[in-house]
Amino acid sequence: MELKRIRKNNRFLTQRSPAEILIFGFALVIFFGAILLTLPIATQTGEGSSFINALFTATSAVCVTGLVVVDTGTYWSVFGKFVIIFLIQIGGLGFMSLTTMFFVLAGKRITIKNRLLISSSINTDSISGIVKFIKYIFFSSIIIESIGALLLAIVFIPEYGLLQGTAFSLFHAISAFCNAGFDLFGNFSSLTQYVDNFIVNFVVCSLIIIGGLGFAVTSDLIYVRKFEKMSMHSKIVLSITAVLLVVGFIFFFIFEFNNPKTMGNLPIHVKFMASFFQSVTPRTAGYNTVDIAGLTLPSLFLTMLLMFIGGSPGSTAGGIKTTTLGLIVLTVASVLNGKKDIVIFKRSILGPAIRRAISVVVIGSTIVIFMIFVLLCTEPNVPFQNIVFEVFSAFGTVGLSTGLTPHLSIGGKIALSITMFVGRLGPLTIAYAIARSEKHSRENIGNFKLPEGNVMIG
Amino acid sequence: MELKRIRKNNRFLTQRSPAEILIFGFALVIFFGAILLTLPIATQTGEGSSFINALFTATSAVCVTGLVVVDTGTYWSVFGKFVIIFLIQIGGLGFMSLTTMFFVLAGKRITIKNRLLISSSINTDSISGIVKFIKYIFFSSIIIESIGALLLAIVFIPEYGLLQGTAFSLFHAISAFCNAGFDLFGNFSSLTQYVDNFIVNFVVCSLIIIGGLGFAVTSDLIYVRKFEKMSMHSKIVLSITAVLLVVGFIFFFIFEFNNPKTMGNLPIHVKFMASFFQSVTPRTAGYNTVDIAGLTLPSLFLTMLLMFIGGSPGSTAGGIKTTTLGLIVLTVASVLNGKKDIVIFKRSILGPAIRRAISVVVIGSTIVIFMIFVLLCTEPNVPFQNIVFEVFSAFGTVGLSTGLTPHLSIGGKIALSITMFVGRLGPLTIAYAIARSEKHSRENIGNFKLPEGNVMIG
Ligand SMILES: [K+]
Ligand SMILES: [K+]
Repeated sequence: MELKRIRKNNRFLTQRSPAEILIFGFALVIFFGAILLTLPIATQTGEGSSFINALFTATSAVCVTGLVVVDTGTYWSVFGKFVIIFLIQIGGLGFMSLTTMFFVLAGKRITIKNRLLISSSINTDSISGIVKFIKYIFFSSIIIESIGALLLAIVFIPEYGLLQGTAFSLFHAISAFCNAGFDLFGNFSSLTQYVDNFIVNFVVCSLIIIGGLGFAVTSDLIYVRKFEKMSMHSKIVLSITAVLLVVGFIFFFIFEFNNPKTMGNLPIHVKFMASFFQSVTPRTAGYNTVDIAGLTLPSLFLTMLLMFIGGSPGSTAGGIKTTTLGLIVLTVASVLNGKKDIVIFKRSILGPAIRRAISVVVIGSTIVIFMIFVLLCTEPNVPFQNIVFEVFSAFGTVGLSTGLTPHLSIGGKIALSITMFVGRLGPLTIAYAIARSEKHSRENIGNFKLPEGNVMIG
Repeated sequence: MELKRIRKNNRFLTQRSPAEILIFGFALVIFFGAILLTLPIATQTGEGSSFINALFTATSAVCVTGLVVVDTGTYWSVFGKFVIIFLIQIGGLGFMSLTTMFFVLAGKRITIKNRLLISSSINTDSISGIVKFIKYIFFSSIIIESIGALLLAIVFIPEYGLLQGTAFSLFHAISAFCNAGFDLFGNFSSLTQYVDNFIVNFVVCSLIIIGGLGFAVTSDLIYVRKFEKMSMHSKIVLSITAVLLVVGFIFFFIFEFNNPKTMGNLPIHVKFMASFFQSVTPRTAGYNTVDIAGLTLPSLFLTMLLMFIGGSPGSTAGGIKTTTLGLIVLTVASVLNGKKDIVIFKRSILGPAIRRAISVVVIGSTIVIFMIFVLLCTEPNVPFQNIVFEVFSAFGTVGLSTGLTPHLSIGGKIALSITMFVGRLGPLTIAYAIARSEKHSRENIGNFKLPEGNVMIG
């Protein structure tokens, strides 16, 4: 068999843990992308970018973050932009596929975590099943991105002409679906000029939400349809996503209603759209239709919290993930109600899943706290909230910015690059550690009355 | 029996949960204290304080916080100061005693939590045992406070004369041991004028640390002495306290070394003392020997984190508590090491304790986040970090301030009063909820190999 030969011939791969291979693989893609971006043909001026700016941009693209030290639209050439969108596609779609591949290459049994993910669409754990699953990811992504691009073309082709309009439609559809947050509109403006454009708002929000739900959930939405029959994982993801979107929408609507720096002067129906967009984007898209630096402090603070939560596991999103939040809330509720069992949607949640959720939150918080310290040292005269905001944005691979990133010191750029990388890979490597521990705990599962429900964490 | 008759005759008490009685009792003491502080004889001018300022001060005293809207030394009369120190003594020492009493009055069996606490000093759960325990708390506190006052008198009597010097020694010894953070030195200056006084630094730090360890630990230190033979609770508390003190000390020493606003111009041995003092005080004393508003942003941020952690349970301290932090760190470590059992000092930590720890952190974070939102709305033109700092200080019942509290709006004062009250009672009421759930879980304990170690949480 082909894979067996690869395994046999490649001592490097077999001796490394999947986490190590994954980290190494992503780092390699980033490094290769950075090299390409330093080439003179990558910039509009033809002078070539500094290595640190190229590295930051490549990291941001592969980690589908969207934080930028230079303006994507005006700084990079067509070649540079092609490199960026290619890195985004690898980072976004390749994420799930590569992790599955690495599992196989490293000769590991597919863990419960991955089997759960696959089971809802393709019910097998054979290698052919994995190939089928990866195909499913790629084809469904291409279809969704194409539909998005077609709809965006309605706006962009009349505005920018056939060639540039088509390119813009494709670039932003891919970037939105992969939750990457890169834009080509110049002057770090993101989608602010389309704050009142219904089609752009609708298409981009849809792509962000679908991309952020994860393939397990979208395949449930397509094939299962009925909420009651979906997997517990999908139920939790959909419930929490809905609650966060609604709460964020109401909050932004109230707190930005009269703010002249954001949407105070916009008509009421645009205020509705803008509030919804700002509720969608911190989880973890990175596009914005109003000026983030102009937000009121309560809105800025809410955005930070939403960025930390992020999207759902098995998707293109970052953050601690909706399911982690869900499990933690359920745990607290069960303690306050004096119940031993943690039950949701008629399923018990067991100790290992709880410990996994705590780990993701604690490790996430530790990373964020550490990086805030680092940036407080490297960027001495920046307001506290801007540093905290940028670190949350990088950790959640969100990409929203109060405007700090382009003015970072070299130390700050390196720190934020590491934050993006760790934010993207961190929860996953934890997941591997847990996959190992899961085997132990499976042998020793205590008493539980309801069938156990699996939830993906991290 | 006396207590039985009280129970029988008092339908109000028997029909209420201990948590309700506790909340009601503390609120009553605060309200009564506030009334006393509005009396004309309570202020130096004889005009009487506004009710909101009296309420804030009474809340801060009973909740042993130390945040003040008016300067304690110059605003309140001798009578007012007597009321405040009396409220501090009730809040600080009465805390553990009252909770134990309420358990008996409400006719509840003493829970594992309380039994653990009592067991290390008095090995019984009878009513006579509780009375004995309360006596132990009171007498040991009075002895420690007296020793502290005697030592402080060496400094204060020569400086302020016999009468005022004695009063100052007693007031600050009580306030330090109860982790209350109130001072009489005027102009919101706290202990800044004693930054270079070894006796004041040594005595106040000792009182704060002893007060913050909790009676279970101090009685282990007195009676058991050998670390190996102490309860697991004491071992965890002592280990984490030591680590946090050392880390804080090193951090402040480095980050304030050259800061002219704090200790940049002080001689090196005073820098050592000042760094140690600033490491001790966020957990959760509230005194300071350098200007908090002058701290560098990294130091300010570390102080916030230390305030959130706070002291140890069963003490006069607030925050999420050292044991909570310990259990969470252990949980993450066990997950990363792929182990099912969480083991420390040869004891297993079980699921219920973990869930309790998560609950305290999640509920604590939720309160803090909510109150930051409220203050961001009530205090529009205040820097973000000052609002976050003051909320952490109130929740952890710390009392350190960047100077915001005296300038708060009425809405802000009310919000911060509630934060102090919830911060003081919150984890405890959660503990009650858990005490209920503990009974359930006890019946269903899964498999564990090592004897279970009890840790007090919240
Ligand atoms: K993003
Ligand atoms: K205090």
